[in-house]
Amino acid sequence: MSAKTQTGKWALSPDRCFDANPVQRKLAHRIYATVQDLPIVSPHGHVSPALLSDPNARFGSPADLFIIPDHYVYRLLYSRGINLADLGVPTRKGPVEGADHRKIWQVFAENFYLFRGTPTGLWLADELTSVFGVDEKLNGANAQAIYDHLERQLAQPEFSPRALFKRFNIEVLCTTDAASDTLAEHKSLRAEGITNVRPTFRPDAVINLEAENWSKNIEKLAEVSGYEIDSYATFIRALQERRAFFKMMGATSTDQAALDPYTERLPEDKAEKIFIRALRGKLKEDDAARFMAHMIIEMARMSTEDGLVMQLHAGSFRNHNAGLFAEYGTDKGADIPVQVEWTHNLYNLLNEFGNDPRLTLILFGLDESTYSRELAPLAGHYPAVLLGPPWWFHDSVNGMVRYLDQVTETASLYNTSGFNDDTRAFVSIPARHDVWRRVTSNWLAGLVNKGLIDLADALEMAQDTSYRLAKRAYRLE
Amino acid sequence: MSAKTQTGKWALSPDRCFDANPVQRKLAHRIYATVQDLPIVSPHGHVSPALLSDPNARFGSPADLFIIPDHYVYRLLYSRGINLADLGVPTRKGPVEGADHRKIWQVFAENFYLFRGTPTGLWLADELTSVFGVDEKLNGANAQAIYDHLERQLAQPEFSPRALFKRFNIEVLCTTDAASDTLAEHKSLRAEGITNVRPTFRPDAVINLEAENWSKNIEKLAEVSGYEIDSYATFIRALQERRAFFKMMGATSTDQAALDPYTERLPEDKAEKIFIRALRGKLKEDDAARFMAHMIIEMARMSTEDGLVMQLHAGSFRNHNAGLFAEYGTDKGADIPVQVEWTHNLYNLLNEFGNDPRLTLILFGLDESTYSRELAPLAGHYPAVLLGPPWWFHDSVNGMVRYLDQVTETASLYNTSGFNDDTRAFVSIPARHDVWRRVTSNWLAGLVNKGLIDLADALEMAQDTSYRLAKRAYRLE
Amino acid sequence: MSAKTQTGKWALSPDRCFDANPVQRKLAHRIYATVQDLPIVSPHGHVSPALLSDPNARFGSPADLFIIPDHYVYRLLYSRGINLADLGVPTRKGPVEGADHRKIWQVFAENFYLFRGTPTGLWLADELTSVFGVDEKLNGANAQAIYDHLERQLAQPEFSPRALFKRFNIEVLCTTDAASDTLAEHKSLRAEGITNVRPTFRPDAVINLEAENWSKNIEKLAEVSGYEIDSYATFIRALQERRAFFKMMGATSTDQAALDPYTERLPEDKAEKIFIRALRGKLKEDDAARFMAHMIIEMARMSTEDGLVMQLHAGSFRNHNAGLFAEYGTDKGADIPVQVEWTHNLYNLLNEFGNDPRLTLILFGLDESTYSRELAPLAGHYPAVLLGPPWWFHDSVNGMVRYLDQVTETASLYNTSGFNDDTRAFVSIPARHDVWRRVTSNWLAGLVNKGLIDLADALEMAQDTSYRLAKRAYRLE
Repeated sequence: MSAKTQTGKWALSPDRCFDANPVQRKLAHRIYATVQDLPIVSPHGHVSPALLSDPNARFGSPADLFIIPDHYVYRLLYSRGINLADLGVPTRKGPVEGADHRKIWQVFAENFYLFRGTPTGLWLADELTSVFGVDEKLNGANAQAIYDHLERQLAQPEFSPRALFKRFNIEVLCTTDAASDTLAEHKSLRAEGITNVRPTFRPDAVINLEAENWSKNIEKLAEVSGYEIDSYATFIRALQERRAFFKMMGATSTDQAALDPYTERLPEDKAEKIFIRALRGKLKEDDAARFMAHMIIEMARMSTEDGLVMQLHAGSFRNHNAGLFAEYGTDKGADIPVQVEWTHNLYNLLNEFGNDPRLTLILFGLDESTYSRELAPLAGHYPAVLLGPPWWFHDSVNGMVRYLDQVTETASLYNTSGFNDDTRAFVSIPARHDVWRRVTSNWLAGLVNKGLIDLADALEMAQDTSYRLAKRAYRLE
Repeated sequence: MSAKTQTGKWALSPDRCFDANPVQRKLAHRIYATVQDLPIVSPHGHVSPALLSDPNARFGSPADLFIIPDHYVYRLLYSRGINLADLGVPTRKGPVEGADHRKIWQVFAENFYLFRGTPTGLWLADELTSVFGVDEKLNGANAQAIYDHLERQLAQPEFSPRALFKRFNIEVLCTTDAASDTLAEHKSLRAEGITNVRPTFRPDAVINLEAENWSKNIEKLAEVSGYEIDSYATFIRALQERRAFFKMMGATSTDQAALDPYTERLPEDKAEKIFIRALRGKLKEDDAARFMAHMIIEMARMSTEDGLVMQLHAGSFRNHNAGLFAEYGTDKGADIPVQVEWTHNLYNLLNEFGNDPRLTLILFGLDESTYSRELAPLAGHYPAVLLGPPWWFHDSVNGMVRYLDQVTETASLYNTSGFNDDTRAFVSIPARHDVWRRVTSNWLAGLVNKGLIDLADALEMAQDTSYRLAKRAYRLE
Repeated sequence: MSAKTQTGKWALSPDRCFDANPVQRKLAHRIYATVQDLPIVSPHGHVSPALLSDPNARFGSPADLFIIPDHYVYRLLYSRGINLADLGVPTRKGPVEGADHRKIWQVFAENFYLFRGTPTGLWLADELTSVFGVDEKLNGANAQAIYDHLERQLAQPEFSPRALFKRFNIEVLCTTDAASDTLAEHKSLRAEGITNVRPTFRPDAVINLEAENWSKNIEKLAEVSGYEIDSYATFIRALQERRAFFKMMGATSTDQAALDPYTERLPEDKAEKIFIRALRGKLKEDDAARFMAHMIIEMARMSTEDGLVMQLHAGSFRNHNAGLFAEYGTDKGADIPVQVEWTHNLYNLLNEFGNDPRLTLILFGLDESTYSRELAPLAGHYPAVLLGPPWWFHDSVNGMVRYLDQVTETASLYNTSGFNDDTRAFVSIPARHDVWRRVTSNWLAGLVNKGLIDLADALEMAQDTSYRLAKRAYRLE
């Protein structure tokens, strides 16, 4: 994942992500130099707030840090026939008892070649070398020595989450939190005066009537909101109350996922009837889909009222591997994208709120064929719509290039929301933002070299996409 | 939108659209030099013939020329929250009374940064610098001075439409005209002996039974054709008569649009029944869609008889923003593409006429995922099928590269129809053709440099795609 | 299709498929030098085994070799209005009597410009220059002289199929053979001790209940298997017996095609009922589709038992041109791709066998929008799934680049199956593998230059993708 330096040590190439053409590379460096050290704005991700609310939190072993919780990493090992059990991945019953973390690390190291040319490989190389000072490329032979090294580092106070938060120069980090979350960690962060770790309101577990444990989720929502939820109306009130609470705790946005971004406003009484059937456990066939379609619009409506920015992620078929899901639960690398249609599906929402200056709706998709066909034209017309950065599998060097090439000519860079890392791997945050800053710098250098923009424009666009657009989109200014 | 020259003046880079690699750039220049000054063949577009039939026609103010009629321009301003009213865009009731064109220009100038890296930005820069000699990049500070300059220029006879037509070296320009149009402007052009402005037969308003004002459109068609249209048979006869009239007025092609290119031949009596229901205002649910599916085949049939080239544009969901449509009408930047299927949908048409040497059917789409999957294989097999150039949003530097890379390996360049500008902005015509000539020259240079073709081939292909293929495809030779 | 050498002779550029940037080109050469001469592993294709089983087999005339049997070639001529009859393409009734092969060659030569920039053009140039020593670019003027030259060459023993097999350095070649094939040629090859020409089991003609002549195919299957096929159970037994026989004759894999890769397990009695209806010629509407959906799973089940690797090719609408099909039959250049959905469609198969370490399922598609969206995520998760190389139209320079860029970041190179040429044109085999080796070498050079992998990784990946991955995937080690 790197060019060896002259000393033979493992190190990332200072030219990484830049074209080999010397004219282009030089200009990419010039642009990159102006954004490389900007503070990190991380408006959407899945880092646990507990890592930061507890001053004594630590990352655990190297396997705890790099492998066990990260489905980006272990899915590739799994795809080559390595069992999740051998990688210490917890089942639904809980963590693997007595897992041998050195053995897990050994398997990982022996299969590190699988990550050649992948974004995960690039991030891991950056983390190991830049954050932890590893100077040999990981392999089966040096696995244990590198494990020793990492273990020593992780024991140092400079490698605590809070210390790294500072070292990483993170200006603001937003977590993702269930609607029924008490936000205890966020409360204690704020009690300490730490206001740059913010929650995000995620209602999926209660608005998707087919979510696992939906009834329990509703009970929990009732409990934390103080509303008895026995009707659609009280459900809506409870959601509004929670949004207000999240906002008080620093949230500036919401987030929700849909397989399919279909939207349709239901008449009040229809919504009520479906909700009551859900409470009684007697859903009819289309109930959940239609309720979701309605609730996406309702979330937009609430956003126009309370000013929370709305994020919508569509197109992931979750838990495709049923056997694995039964044993291990969600987020095990078995979420597979599907085709998505936006133009027809968002019609109802956009006709109700797309022209409303109070709404910011940020769209994320995994179906890249919609970039130029649907997403860019929608963002290039509706005042409310912005496009989120390349998501998940497409948060990669090529994925970014495809996004930039397919989106910006039609939507304009100024209808995008900059970058977000969307990570659950805290230590990968700087690596991910760095790839974005490098790829966009190189892309802007290309536009300058092709005579399509001038350098002054490029330098502003670099600042915008690395820093300002995310702050503006997420109302973090 | 340019590299500044050494004197600090705003000017387009002479290297624009070419790769930065010096070997590649040099060869691209060499190829481009052979096509740069070829006459412009513009076989499809939306310029008003009135601009050219009236020798005294003028463009109006700078806002009239660049902003008010061009949805490519104002949609981006709208997407950032600027009202169409503040841009002088006419509503259905008519032009904005007393619109302050200097104020409109000021808003445009202050937001000119939105166009960075967009094709519209590139064309505007070319028009302002090359056509009008503006030498400072437009911004809020210099907006009024540039307005003054443009106003002075536009008052000169050298900036009349006819003078620019000559200056632009346009060999032939085809307009787009409703089936019921009297072609009064085309008649007077021909009366003057001007035969290189030609009409194109566009029957959408009468073959789409759900078109706004369909009954009135039919009445108008009856009037101009001299047929009483009281049956499907007389409707067909009227269309045929109009096609003959258009042909007499110089037309060599027809054009029609469909959300979905589904084709199906209806039995005569079925077509008759649907048409009668339409006349009576009593359409059944699928009537309009099935009639359209049938009429696409009928248009192909007529083309085999009268030799008019058939164009089919598919995949735009028109007037997606219903509120805006109600107030402002069509073509307001709110047309959003959708997924399109060609293979199944064109089956019936192609099985009837795809092997017919008399038919030329030029296909245009907005769903780029169909380039390599459906369109190139269809064009690479059926004698009747050609592919039109990248359409609308994809008439851009990257859009052209994607098209060339995804289409030509399978279809061969020789199953494409060269370039057309499809513009309603007359002054943008040279800029648009220039981008095509530059991008294709650079692309051909790439093929030579990669050893995939030799220079002799490249030079011929450049002539072909810049000039000859359009003439051949549209039977303008 | 080449840069002329300084002597003015037609020759392929030694830099073909490499970027013009000198740094990149140099590194591409360095990588390519390590794989250029590796033996060819050709695990999937359509070469007739008769070419190799008969020591005296010859290729016939230049038209027999290059034009008449190759729909890649004549479809482009057809698309420009040249009749298949004038190209000597046999109809269903048999070969064209008294076809003038010199005239066919003349037409081909005069239209050779159509292949500019196409993969077929690149292969033809490689075959003509590298294999047959033609040193002038083919055109109408030199057509007959080149025909003479080729005729002389083809008469030499060095140009027999067996001699070229050796010269081409083919380590192993797999053919594709109907389930009911007696494998007579393979038997005689093995009798001679030739074990590197292997059959592949292709059951399409018997598992697709709507296949042309299905009943006859079943009779033939019964005959060769020795089973009376009067029930679903005997049908399955016959298939299993044939698979065992193919395996004995050297097969390591199966292959099947589906318009749509939908999979669904039918209960035994349901499958039985459908099969009986098929035997009686009384299929109901969905019978064939559901039986196919079931049989795809059954083929996977059999693979887990007998270890044959399973290939699935989806997404080609066969014989789109009904008139041509009626006269000429299958494989006439009229197969047009359609959209394909993999995520939902393979759900049932993958949930039954996707985690089974005994299964290798290699997927091939023509809908490139599924590369990054569905295929790479599936291969990057399920242990059983590998991705086949770019198929058919996409077996081209740009098609390979798109594949590599869109697949490998998510799936990892190590979940792909290397290259296969899939050709029926034996003489094109080295040209096709060479394009792959060049394009991947250049792509790997790009990753190194962009600092995403180091040279050591690149060199290993080059060996892997040119040679080792195909052997591993197809169990040819």
